[in-house]
Amino acid sequence: MAAVTADSQNNNLFKRKTKKCLKNICSIKTLKKRLPIIQWLPKYKREYIIQDIIAGITVGLTAIPQGMAYAVIAGLPPEYGLYASLTSGIIYVIFGSCYNITVGPTAIISTLTTRYVVGYSPDFAILVAFLSGVLILLLGVLNLGFLVEFISMPVINGFTNAAALQIAASQLKSFFGLQGSSGNYFAQSVYNFFNNVSTAKLSEPILGSSTIIMLLLLKKMGQGCKRTDGIVKQVRWFISLSRNAVVVVVGMIIAYTIKLVNDSEPLILIGDIGHGLPQFGWPPFSTVVGNETYSFTEMMQTIGVQAAVLPFVAIIETVAIAKAFAEDGRIDATQEMIAVGLCNIIGSFGRSMPITGSFTRTALNHISGVKTPAGGVTKVLLLVVALTYLTSTFYYIPKSSLAGLIITAMFSMMDFSIVSSLWKNSVKEFLLWQVTTIVCLFLGLEYGILIGVLAEALLLLYNVSRPSLKVELLKALKGDILVVNLCENVSYCAAEYVRQKVMRATSYTLTNVPIVLNGLNLRMLDFTAASNLMSIIKDLDKTHHIILLNFNVDVKKLCLSIDSQFESKFMYASSPLELTEIFTKDV
Amino acid sequence: MAAVTADSQNNNLFKRKTKKCLKNICSIKTLKKRLPIIQWLPKYKREYIIQDIIAGITVGLTAIPQGMAYAVIAGLPPEYGLYASLTSGIIYVIFGSCYNITVGPTAIISTLTTRYVVGYSPDFAILVAFLSGVLILLLGVLNLGFLVEFISMPVINGFTNAAALQIAASQLKSFFGLQGSSGNYFAQSVYNFFNNVSTAKLSEPILGSSTIIMLLLLKKMGQGCKRTDGIVKQVRWFISLSRNAVVVVVGMIIAYTIKLVNDSEPLILIGDIGHGLPQFGWPPFSTVVGNETYSFTEMMQTIGVQAAVLPFVAIIETVAIAKAFAEDGRIDATQEMIAVGLCNIIGSFGRSMPITGSFTRTALNHISGVKTPAGGVTKVLLLVVALTYLTSTFYYIPKSSLAGLIITAMFSMMDFSIVSSLWKNSVKEFLLWQVTTIVCLFLGLEYGILIGVLAEALLLLYNVSRPSLKVELLKALKGDILVVNLCENVSYCAAEYVRQKVMRATSYTLTNVPIVLNGLNLRMLDFTAASNLMSIIKDLDKTHHIILLNFNVDVKKLCLSIDSQFESKFMYASSPLELTEIFTKDV
Repeated sequence: MAAVTADSQNNNLFKRKTKKCLKNICSIKTLKKRLPIIQWLPKYKREYIIQDIIAGITVGLTAIPQGMAYAVIAGLPPEYGLYASLTSGIIYVIFGSCYNITVGPTAIISTLTTRYVVGYSPDFAILVAFLSGVLILLLGVLNLGFLVEFISMPVINGFTNAAALQIAASQLKSFFGLQGSSGNYFAQSVYNFFNNVSTAKLSEPILGSSTIIMLLLLKKMGQGCKRTDGIVKQVRWFISLSRNAVVVVVGMIIAYTIKLVNDSEPLILIGDIGHGLPQFGWPPFSTVVGNETYSFTEMMQTIGVQAAVLPFVAIIETVAIAKAFAEDGRIDATQEMIAVGLCNIIGSFGRSMPITGSFTRTALNHISGVKTPAGGVTKVLLLVVALTYLTSTFYYIPKSSLAGLIITAMFSMMDFSIVSSLWKNSVKEFLLWQVTTIVCLFLGLEYGILIGVLAEALLLLYNVSRPSLKVELLKALKGDILVVNLCENVSYCAAEYVRQKVMRATSYTLTNVPIVLNGLNLRMLDFTAASNLMSIIKDLDKTHHIILLNFNVDVKKLCLSIDSQFESKFMYASSPLELTEIFTKDV
Repeated sequence: MAAVTADSQNNNLFKRKTKKCLKNICSIKTLKKRLPIIQWLPKYKREYIIQDIIAGITVGLTAIPQGMAYAVIAGLPPEYGLYASLTSGIIYVIFGSCYNITVGPTAIISTLTTRYVVGYSPDFAILVAFLSGVLILLLGVLNLGFLVEFISMPVINGFTNAAALQIAASQLKSFFGLQGSSGNYFAQSVYNFFNNVSTAKLSEPILGSSTIIMLLLLKKMGQGCKRTDGIVKQVRWFISLSRNAVVVVVGMIIAYTIKLVNDSEPLILIGDIGHGLPQFGWPPFSTVVGNETYSFTEMMQTIGVQAAVLPFVAIIETVAIAKAFAEDGRIDATQEMIAVGLCNIIGSFGRSMPITGSFTRTALNHISGVKTPAGGVTKVLLLVVALTYLTSTFYYIPKSSLAGLIITAMFSMMDFSIVSSLWKNSVKEFLLWQVTTIVCLFLGLEYGILIGVLAEALLLLYNVSRPSLKVELLKALKGDILVVNLCENVSYCAAEYVRQKVMRATSYTLTNVPIVLNGLNLRMLDFTAASNLMSIIKDLDKTHHIILLNFNVDVKKLCLSIDSQFESKFMYASSPLELTEIFTKDV
């Protein structure tokens, strides 16, 4: 009978939940939440236009050189970095919930893509974008975004720093004009660098270093200048913000001048860039590399399970950025995931590599005073112009300029500020940070973050299996009472530990000392823990007077369903001392 | 400076711990704990001998038929079941801490061994015993036995029932005298049964069913009889306890009589049994199957990672038995693991299959009134006699008798008593039980227990990431206070959830309502949670008067190392209402 009631209750609850859920899905409020453009576009004001355009131009001027640089990191032809900002830029305007954010290729996502491109073909990067998009969208729709909360700050910090180091190390090849490959992870890149350092050219590192110095000077030039300052300061502000474009243009001019004067190309240039907009069509579900045809299954096998790290990193990046730039600190993580998921899915139809929110360009967007997601439209127009008219100009971009650009960006990405705090406050978390960093550097980023997350989850499970118990001997007028306070929830994995602790505590007492198990802080028990508790009671009941104090109704019900003979042991009182009356009467 | 102090403190702590640990290892107390025989042997009394011998004989009379039956379950020649109880019996006498326990092959361990024998050779079973022993010993020595606490009762129950069903189903082949193989997991065994049922013989199921009926009758016969009763009752008691041996002997006599009378062997018999004691020597680190030679690496690859399930199950079985039969409920799980580990390791030098504590035979030992582990010596002597003189007699044991024996044992192993309690009290745990059972039955026992444990750990992690918060609006004379009680520890994975909850709670209040975050129940915070907390404070501080009440010293220190500007926000009071004074002054 009880089972039937519980069953029908469950059923009713389920029906009500389903109804509420369906109602929620179909409401106008949900539509507005899921299509933010219908919220902001009708409210668009004329004065926003100028600000959105200015912001779009500054962002675009960074998106072009960064996009090409990140495509190069991923081992892709440079135009793929532009394709990646193109479709996604439009999609984000429609679905994005945070107007500051600009999406596109990022350094970490690109470096995670590398291993699917080098030795294979760009088609793999596009399929990875499609699959990542599907996973991100799914996680968003199923409300599973909380999964990224299982990646703690020490792990993220270790991962990000290692990624920056790896990306910088992978650029040593271009920076010094070396031969050979650049390596899939930090240790390999460094090894390859020392292995090939004898093939270094002089001109490349000179241009690379000049690029870095120029970037630092241009950054300094803009300090203290605002968009709203006088015309001189405004120009300084704009040039400083567009410094990524400026250094690339300078490199380009140098290479072109040498070509004109000497009719030679001593610098390693980016070379031919695919001209025009990408061809739209289905993502490549099969492909040909060399003479070998890869079916969908074979492509999936090549990509492998560890590729699942990529969408999670994409979610972390975009959610972290949204948090940093949301006006009131409140963000709709689900909507962000839906937007980034769709950007990747639809982007992959336009030959986009995997993308996510970009921290640099979002910050730039914010500083430039963007007002609505419409700023992204200007950026996309600029990219269209670049792809249509500028590809032959881009031919002259020196690779060492891009390398200098990337290395500079990477050094500003590194952040070791939490490390000393970790060391001082929690050696365990410091070790976790170290393990993540070391595995990232020496085995690869995917393994590092996976091992970091697993190690932290195991530590957490261990902590849960060792809840704190407070044992106290209360001296009352009518005799002592041993009180065992269960201060935290007891889970199945803590059941045995609690038994041992309770047994040890009681073994030091005389048999006529009553024992009170205080369950005030016990929110819930699972079946294993409850069974164990009842077996403790059964054992102690032989030798002691025992009381279960202030256990909540659910826990009591569960305990009694396991062993109903101890109903009289459950009692309620505001303090264990109130129970002395009972003990003195009974014993 | 602070880092240096922490460092030297850590070092000192480490040195002291190491010293204490070394001292512990070398003490006489530890020696006695680790070699229990030097504790009980000097105290051995003459009157124990008779009781130990009687118990040894009853256990031996069960160990012989059960051993052969379990060897058959594992796909091994029957003598391996006897080898398995031989060496391990002696080793347990020396190292065992619980005098009731008898070790040897068990139904579940045997069925887990099957897949390394069928299609390969007995050598694989012996290597698995050796490797399992090493792992169990390691886990014992490193105090990692707590790992089995992560296997909850619903998972163990689902696993055990599924194992019983699988073992019973695997006996259908012998019970009905079918052709074909018996299958590696329940679903396969049932499928094979229906596939081959047309090859059934009449005589086999008749003898099998008679065996089952006989076992039930013999069990009934012993009810109400004790070892200390009069001679008639004593005989009834002894026959009832030895019923496993009795039914096998009856089956043997029937087969032998048919042979004498008709000179034919219509029943499927166990056949030739290896005569004499096993040859002692190194466990097989390489082997030959058919024409193929397996190196150690190839053997390891064949065995695979999932074999790691076996030692864990062995630990669960032996620890569970120790708990059930320990006199005062207190057991030394570490010593049990060391003993069972050594039994497997040293046993594998005597061609033993994997073994652990046996529930049936331990119960028998207990009922028979065993006094010390010396009872095991009699059992071993009986096994030596069996192996030396009786192997030609064992030739006539009908396989269907053994099948009936096993099926009967399996039905008494099944226990569904917790299922209704699970259903009534915790649908989640009921589902967990179901998933474990279904995966065990349809994919295999190893996968079932692994998926059960993983699913439960994930559920636990989810619960930890959703700690309970209690929000209350306190009405004080001088104005309201919003109190957010952090009732449980907040881990990194709960940081974001807590932020959202706190933000939601405060968004409904007016800006002049002070907010108190009550951290009384917060035992510890990790870096991620603390950072998040400080960012909440930073956000709320802009609009509200905020107080951090009763945070402990460690948590406060961590928080201030992240953001030192909020030192003045930490306060201590026995109730939030005491703070109204401060608020009214400041606001």
